[in-house]
Amino acid sequence: MFKNPTKLIFGKGTIASLSTEIPAGKRVMMTYGGGSIKSNGVYDQVKAALNNYSVIEFSGIEPNPTYETLMKAVALAKEQQIDFFLAVGGGSVIDGTKFIVTAMLYDGDPWEFMIDPSKAKHALPFATVLTLPATGSEMNNGSVISKKATHEKFAFAISETYPQFSILDPEMTFSLPKRQLANGVVDAYVHVMEQYLTFPSESMIQDRFSEGILSTLTEIGDKVVNDKPQYDLRANFMLSATMALNGFISMGVPQDWATHMIGHELTALYGLDHAVTLAIVQPSLLRVMRNEKHAKLLQYADRVWHITQGSEDERIEAAIKQTEAFYRSVGIKTKLSEYGIDDKLFDTIVERFAKRGWKLGEKQLITPELIREILNGCLS
Amino acid sequence: MFKNPTKLIFGKGTIASLSTEIPAGKRVMMTYGGGSIKSNGVYDQVKAALNNYSVIEFSGIEPNPTYETLMKAVALAKEQQIDFFLAVGGGSVIDGTKFIVTAMLYDGDPWEFMIDPSKAKHALPFATVLTLPATGSEMNNGSVISKKATHEKFAFAISETYPQFSILDPEMTFSLPKRQLANGVVDAYVHVMEQYLTFPSESMIQDRFSEGILSTLTEIGDKVVNDKPQYDLRANFMLSATMALNGFISMGVPQDWATHMIGHELTALYGLDHAVTLAIVQPSLLRVMRNEKHAKLLQYADRVWHITQGSEDERIEAAIKQTEAFYRSVGIKTKLSEYGIDDKLFDTIVERFAKRGWKLGEKQLITPELIREILNGCLS
Repeated sequence: MFKNPTKLIFGKGTIASLSTEIPAGKRVMMTYGGGSIKSNGVYDQVKAALNNYSVIEFSGIEPNPTYETLMKAVALAKEQQIDFFLAVGGGSVIDGTKFIVTAMLYDGDPWEFMIDPSKAKHALPFATVLTLPATGSEMNNGSVISKKATHEKFAFAISETYPQFSILDPEMTFSLPKRQLANGVVDAYVHVMEQYLTFPSESMIQDRFSEGILSTLTEIGDKVVNDKPQYDLRANFMLSATMALNGFISMGVPQDWATHMIGHELTALYGLDHAVTLAIVQPSLLRVMRNEKHAKLLQYADRVWHITQGSEDERIEAAIKQTEAFYRSVGIKTKLSEYGIDDKLFDTIVERFAKRGWKLGEKQLITPELIREILNGCLS
Repeated sequence: MFKNPTKLIFGKGTIASLSTEIPAGKRVMMTYGGGSIKSNGVYDQVKAALNNYSVIEFSGIEPNPTYETLMKAVALAKEQQIDFFLAVGGGSVIDGTKFIVTAMLYDGDPWEFMIDPSKAKHALPFATVLTLPATGSEMNNGSVISKKATHEKFAFAISETYPQFSILDPEMTFSLPKRQLANGVVDAYVHVMEQYLTFPSESMIQDRFSEGILSTLTEIGDKVVNDKPQYDLRANFMLSATMALNGFISMGVPQDWATHMIGHELTALYGLDHAVTLAIVQPSLLRVMRNEKHAKLLQYADRVWHITQGSEDERIEAAIKQTEAFYRSVGIKTKLSEYGIDDKLFDTIVERFAKRGWKLGEKQLITPELIREILNGCLS
């Protein structure tokens, strides 16, 4: 099943279209983060385009947006009778806004629908102006929200939390620091890999599209991060990140996501950036699971890296090495030891998964003991 | 800009989901064509799934659906107070149904909005059950309708003529005759080529997706048409045709469509199948326009046909020859002489384009004189 009603508005100067895309007469809440949009010109462009609307601002949505912060926005929006929301930022601001628009129409404590997403039914309309390509939240309905009080982090998604439209102006990425660009490139790449590098299924078209995104990212990643901003490269980077997680390449295909699950623990325990954990965990996971992923690893080696020489095992190892080299080319180190981290907490991580009774991966074959093996492969 | 709200429901046995996808209480008009759905089991499955709805049938929508036929459906639907339409068939039935749902809400003679599509504003909701993969109408809002009385043929598209959902069950293609399968494969292939084979633009992702569809079709086309039906191959064929014309690969890219324009004349004058005209015209057009399309032809040769040996001109000619061989592999001949057609009416065709003052192609460089050169290249 595939359905994605979000309208993508793509290109230079498209922020101006806010003035016609948002229905006339709406009372708009503009949500954003720490204020970087004030120094890079995005804020001014958005405000100019919203000239004919009543606009209330809500700033301070943090990375890993919290229930506590977002409930303040809900209270303000109710008081101000807001009926349209505009998220200006990256995945955190957009995810947070998905929570706000749903909480606006929820009777009771909105945290209830984070615990049990089936309780969420409706949401007010919202749109986005994307400033940080990475999570794909601008063209999907998913949202991940944290609660400080209880140290919980849950996800929800309902049919009404797709943005009405999302504005992607590649120039809005020109002022991003290298670290955020590099994280975005790796994030998008691993999103695709989680949906692609499993086992062969009937999905030739989804495979080709996945390989197309991966090939594009390998082609442009280094230049996006390390060169002076170039419009065309940023445009393709933005589209890659959006297409990586808008539901099409996942239609009817097996999915893995074990790299993400293990990576989340590394972020929780060591404070590593999300994308950094992916770049560390994934190569080791591919090595440990190489038999289960054999056919797809060979296809990946051939179609993305054009590796055709050597034995099957050699081609697979070469493809994994190329993947690591790609992450390093954008400036992200791929071993825990390079971040000064040793194996002291591996027992803790393995026990966490053991207690939850989770088995990870596309065939639920990744047991806690295999997680330990994967972690050992991350060290150096 | 990209927006496509149609929900794709894909897979074996999905016709049964009609019973939950169509809102309860709707009065449904089921539209179809010449009745082939009665011999292949589709009709029975659809009727069974519609068990709990009031259903009125309207059959007899012809290939190249006509205003005259469709207005009978409009009259019947108004009389029966129909408020949901279900098109069961291929592109003609779906295109015809898009006209019907729009005509239902139009004051005045609906042909007015075919002449001036800006007059069409609203449409009743409809969905589709696709039986013939080819035109992509199941996931776009376009419709081409003919008027017998005046020999006119026009296209329209409004935001409300996207299907609410489309059901694609690969098994529903199992009884299709070879000729329709072959036409569908070529139709989808050339749809992609019209949006891809122009000149390089910033659209790396769209290029990769286009190449992905083309590669898939070259990989499976022969087997889809000539072998016993295989579910996986039909599934990928269906998805290829849908993705070829759902708006994504065309987002922000130059487009050609000259092969279609010239092909339409060959259908009008000689009665050749649409796909046959595309297979005849396109190779000649690529040869005549090879300088303008030079860079993209080399990219096509490399990425779709893996041609890396020889001079640039040799690689381009080899790619065009491979394209012709591909069309022939599904049983479609690529020269007019093979259909017993000579150059007698070429003057007529060239004059038609000259009178209209049209210049064709992605840069409007294809003059009537170049159209003559292209036609000459179609002969033998």
